[in-house]
Amino acid sequence: MNIPKHQQNDIAKQAAGKAAVNYIQDGMLIGLGTGSTASYFIDALIERCHTTTLKIHAVATSERSYQQAKSGGISLYDINQITQLDMTIDGADEIDRKKQMIKGGGGALLREKIVAYMSQEMVVIVDDTKLVEYLGCFPLPVEILPFAYQSTLNQIHLLGFQGRLRQDAQGQLYVTDNGNYIVDIVTKHPFQNPQQDHALLKSIPGVIETGFFLNMAGRVIVGHNDGSIDIIE
Amino acid sequence: MNIPKHQQNDIAKQAAGKAAVNYIQDGMLIGLGTGSTASYFIDALIERCHTTTLKIHAVATSERSYQQAKSGGISLYDINQITQLDMTIDGADEIDRKKQMIKGGGGALLREKIVAYMSQEMVVIVDDTKLVEYLGCFPLPVEILPFAYQSTLNQIHLLGFQGRLRQDAQGQLYVTDNGNYIVDIVTKHPFQNPQQDHALLKSIPGVIETGFFLNMAGRVIVGHNDGSIDIIE
Repeated sequence: MNIPKHQQNDIAKQAAGKAAVNYIQDGMLIGLGTGSTASYFIDALIERCHTTTLKIHAVATSERSYQQAKSGGISLYDINQITQLDMTIDGADEIDRKKQMIKGGGGALLREKIVAYMSQEMVVIVDDTKLVEYLGCFPLPVEILPFAYQSTLNQIHLLGFQGRLRQDAQGQLYVTDNGNYIVDIVTKHPFQNPQQDHALLKSIPGVIETGFFLNMAGRVIVGHNDGSIDIIE
Repeated sequence: MNIPKHQQNDIAKQAAGKAAVNYIQDGMLIGLGTGSTASYFIDALIERCHTTTLKIHAVATSERSYQQAKSGGISLYDINQITQLDMTIDGADEIDRKKQMIKGGGGALLREKIVAYMSQEMVVIVDDTKLVEYLGCFPLPVEILPFAYQSTLNQIHLLGFQGRLRQDAQGQLYVTDNGNYIVDIVTKHPFQNPQQDHALLKSIPGVIETGFFLNMAGRVIVGHNDGSIDIIE
């Protein structure tokens, strides 16, 4: 049977999302990521809460994840009322063998990074197409302030990066949940030194955050299109 | 004659502001800072433009400076249409002998830093009470994202800094022109290593910018309360 590739991916994503529920313990306060794989996790979490005695509380990194969890009966907290989380479960756009990641394809990188940083552990769930040798096939999203954005874009170029402002479906500049713009940086060569590139970009006033998630991933669950998973400890 | 101290300060600020106009050359595109000393500069610039053939264009770091310059007939550009400036003239809350500064008492630190960064030179104008041996008598303003701000404040404390959220006159959380909050960090001891403290604070996702302006000042004009000035090259 030939399963279309995007459906194979869905099987892999679902396998990773489902497996992450096994890490959730009673009473935990957890962060819910954003994206298709995180969405499978939220579905599985809702089901687990309905079919067992598991009781948890959560915060969401986006309106979409918030609505999905809320409609499934998950108890949600206001992020401004808490200072730390037990665990965050989120996807990634790319992850290398050292568990360094690029995130932000969905535009929620800043909130995702804040929530991951608040957490005792960030559990990453990906399908196996997200595993890479070096970061950089996926464009690196960088959140920038609207004030003087042309200058900030110019400064990014002066540092040797090629980037363009993200647009929405209507051709307007994409605006994040925080009211900022996103520059997607593309590179012909992989990012050989993500730490250095992150620091360079962050040295520009007007650059608010980069999509490099470095030294943040805890356990990584990798889903395959036969429904199996691998765990990178 | 006993001149009240705040009026002495005004004489010193005005002296510095007036002297800065001598650096402005015909055709320059300049950045206008924010605050009482910058305001004296803008007054002096307006007068110079009216009484000589000097022609310049400017951008402003705040609505207040914009209105002051506009009502004085200065030609103002939209900051989003330009990528660099010839010179920015701005004040400082504290400046040490190495020309490292704290800025942001007026709440415009992020825009001031962006505009200074866009400039070939940042000329700093201060009265002599702003000169310090070590930075840290003045609270260090840090601009943070409203999303998860209690957690960000907590992370700042965990790094060993004592800070509190700035409030406006009505006791509400102060909101910057960029829609963010400000934490004012107070320290019993001076900041011995501003570079390191800046990097530590910036490592927290949710911290957007600090009020440390390091290695940014060009020439510094120091006004005294007898109307004289010193220039630190």
